[in-house]
Amino acid sequence: MTQTADTEAPRRPAQGGSVVISVDAMGGDSGPVAVIAGMAQSAEKNPDIRFVVHGPEAELSKLIARKRGLAERCEIRDAQGVVTMNDKPGQVIRNAQGTSMLSAVESVRNGEASIAVSCGNTGALMALSMIRLRKLPGVNRPAIACLWPSRNAQGFNVMLDCGADIRADAPDLLQYALMGAAYARNGLDLARPRVGLLNVGTEEHKGRAELRQAHELIQAAQETGNFEYVGFVEGGDLPSNRADVIVTDGFTGNVALKTGEGTAKLVGDFLKEAFANSLMSKFAALLALTSLKRLQKRIDPRRVNGGVFLGLNGMVVKSHGSADATGVSAAIKLAFQLAQSGFQDRLAARVAEAAANVEEARAINISSTDEVAS
Amino acid sequence: MTQTADTEAPRRPAQGGSVVISVDAMGGDSGPVAVIAGMAQSAEKNPDIRFVVHGPEAELSKLIARKRGLAERCEIRDAQGVVTMNDKPGQVIRNAQGTSMLSAVESVRNGEASIAVSCGNTGALMALSMIRLRKLPGVNRPAIACLWPSRNAQGFNVMLDCGADIRADAPDLLQYALMGAAYARNGLDLARPRVGLLNVGTEEHKGRAELRQAHELIQAAQETGNFEYVGFVEGGDLPSNRADVIVTDGFTGNVALKTGEGTAKLVGDFLKEAFANSLMSKFAALLALTSLKRLQKRIDPRRVNGGVFLGLNGMVVKSHGSADATGVSAAIKLAFQLAQSGFQDRLAARVAEAAANVEEARAINISSTDEVAS
Repeated sequence: MTQTADTEAPRRPAQGGSVVISVDAMGGDSGPVAVIAGMAQSAEKNPDIRFVVHGPEAELSKLIARKRGLAERCEIRDAQGVVTMNDKPGQVIRNAQGTSMLSAVESVRNGEASIAVSCGNTGALMALSMIRLRKLPGVNRPAIACLWPSRNAQGFNVMLDCGADIRADAPDLLQYALMGAAYARNGLDLARPRVGLLNVGTEEHKGRAELRQAHELIQAAQETGNFEYVGFVEGGDLPSNRADVIVTDGFTGNVALKTGEGTAKLVGDFLKEAFANSLMSKFAALLALTSLKRLQKRIDPRRVNGGVFLGLNGMVVKSHGSADATGVSAAIKLAFQLAQSGFQDRLAARVAEAAANVEEARAINISSTDEVAS
Repeated sequence: MTQTADTEAPRRPAQGGSVVISVDAMGGDSGPVAVIAGMAQSAEKNPDIRFVVHGPEAELSKLIARKRGLAERCEIRDAQGVVTMNDKPGQVIRNAQGTSMLSAVESVRNGEASIAVSCGNTGALMALSMIRLRKLPGVNRPAIACLWPSRNAQGFNVMLDCGADIRADAPDLLQYALMGAAYARNGLDLARPRVGLLNVGTEEHKGRAELRQAHELIQAAQETGNFEYVGFVEGGDLPSNRADVIVTDGFTGNVALKTGEGTAKLVGDFLKEAFANSLMSKFAALLALTSLKRLQKRIDPRRVNGGVFLGLNGMVVKSHGSADATGVSAAIKLAFQLAQSGFQDRLAARVAEAAANVEEARAINISSTDEVAS
């Protein structure tokens, strides 16, 4: 992987060495306490991370001062406004000035940070990121890619879109396949990722019309996109070894993601209850402590926290709104890896290469579905 | 619950005492061996079950003869044709004559069995059931309801539609709410079930237009439908205690169901690996055997096997295509419970009561979305 490219992206700090991460300290369910604690965890583990952190200066500087060694590695950008979970994206766009979220995105735009991390409102973060960073040339709908614990050698699958947009037509799904494959190549070190398209069955006639169209488009793009298309996959394949990248629209992806997380949590809770059930099983749990901790680590959704926005002129990681310090730290770790690997430039190059094919697909798609505006 | 009603349903055996279940022995991934073994398991546990079983007579009678006591409780209906997993519903409808699947549905239609069970192709089974049993008056799209392990007191949530149809408009979703609530009242003994509508967020402005319309419709139907509407729920709420009935379209429901099953299976496998990891943890697993078995029972998807078709003049249970003997037996148990509770008559009465409201909603929906055919 030695491709580089001249892209239209804003200026960006040099790769390698220390990475500056822009952190929105506000907007998550647990407030700035969890965010600053997560930053401190990351800073302690990784000497190459520095932060620009956004929020009310007085509050943040107090929280940062309590964490040993953190203040020296943080710059605070005062921002009194907070985007809440209930703000509609339209409102946010009109009233974004002075919010910590906009300020965090601006740090990526103006090049003082390589990547932004926020626990805030997903819709608002995507809206502000699109307006301030703009879409990569050739991208119609940006997507959120997330990692999914799986039986793959690398331990994770990439799924996209996890909720950037509730709609996706066939050319959008093709673009997701290209962007997801690029993420898997760079983020998971897979030379030729396997891509699957999520449907209600694996037979060719299944599903909505746009899925059958996307099936044809993605199949045809295998060689130029440098991935292997495995065809339709089902919900049960999300944690499987059938594919490395799973492509779907943002509505379905969001429901699947939250369903998987909820189910893993339910099973984990049942497991705890099972071991708390008798003196014998409590003793057994003590004996098995190492194994159980290893298990917990494998299925803990906080450890794969972080949806990556793909398709913009700049990188943004969306952490869970409910992330605690461990979750925030996982999102920061992911942001660091992506920034240091130079993923953004490679993605931009890949999208530019494929843009002509996607445009052609869109033209064919429009004429075949008669969706031409009058 | 003492409601009864004159319904337009076909004649049906008297309730109480023994129940005759019509079983399609063919079409599942494991073939008739697993189906007959499942029937034998159920027959052994429950003296009140009798079967009419459909498939190639020579093959079935040989398999049945191997199970002690089963032959006396089975009637075989010879059917040489098999609907395969790859047959498209359209093909199946044209070529259904002589298949075990059609024969199994006919037994419900002509009143010799109370309910049918099949492991075959879901789309084909729904298509044949709709043609031979017909939709209940007032139902536009029948749905498949499935049970989902949860934190509820009863241990399960009902989700529908799990894949009968890949589309659902707002009045369809209202109907699913009414039918799902009826199922929860009768199948889970909940006087006033809580109903939630699946979306990508709980805020009122989230999701597609038809979801926001359905939100209004279901809210307005709470009193007449005898349920409590809890509003939008997310994927993470499927296994939660926030709702008893979760309403969604069949595409999303199918993906969520399979994602949940796949995730539970992944965590179960990781758990086994964790305990196989060292001598100490193997010893611990031995000590915790009872607890671990209890856990396995709680999360084993085979134990909640069986999607129930709602909205037809007759009951059909769709078992997993991949069901083994335990899975088939679980589907038969569910069928027995539903048949003995007289659920079908109560559902028909409930749907008839609500039909006027749904029709009104449909009229309003059509005019508000300008989907009137020219």
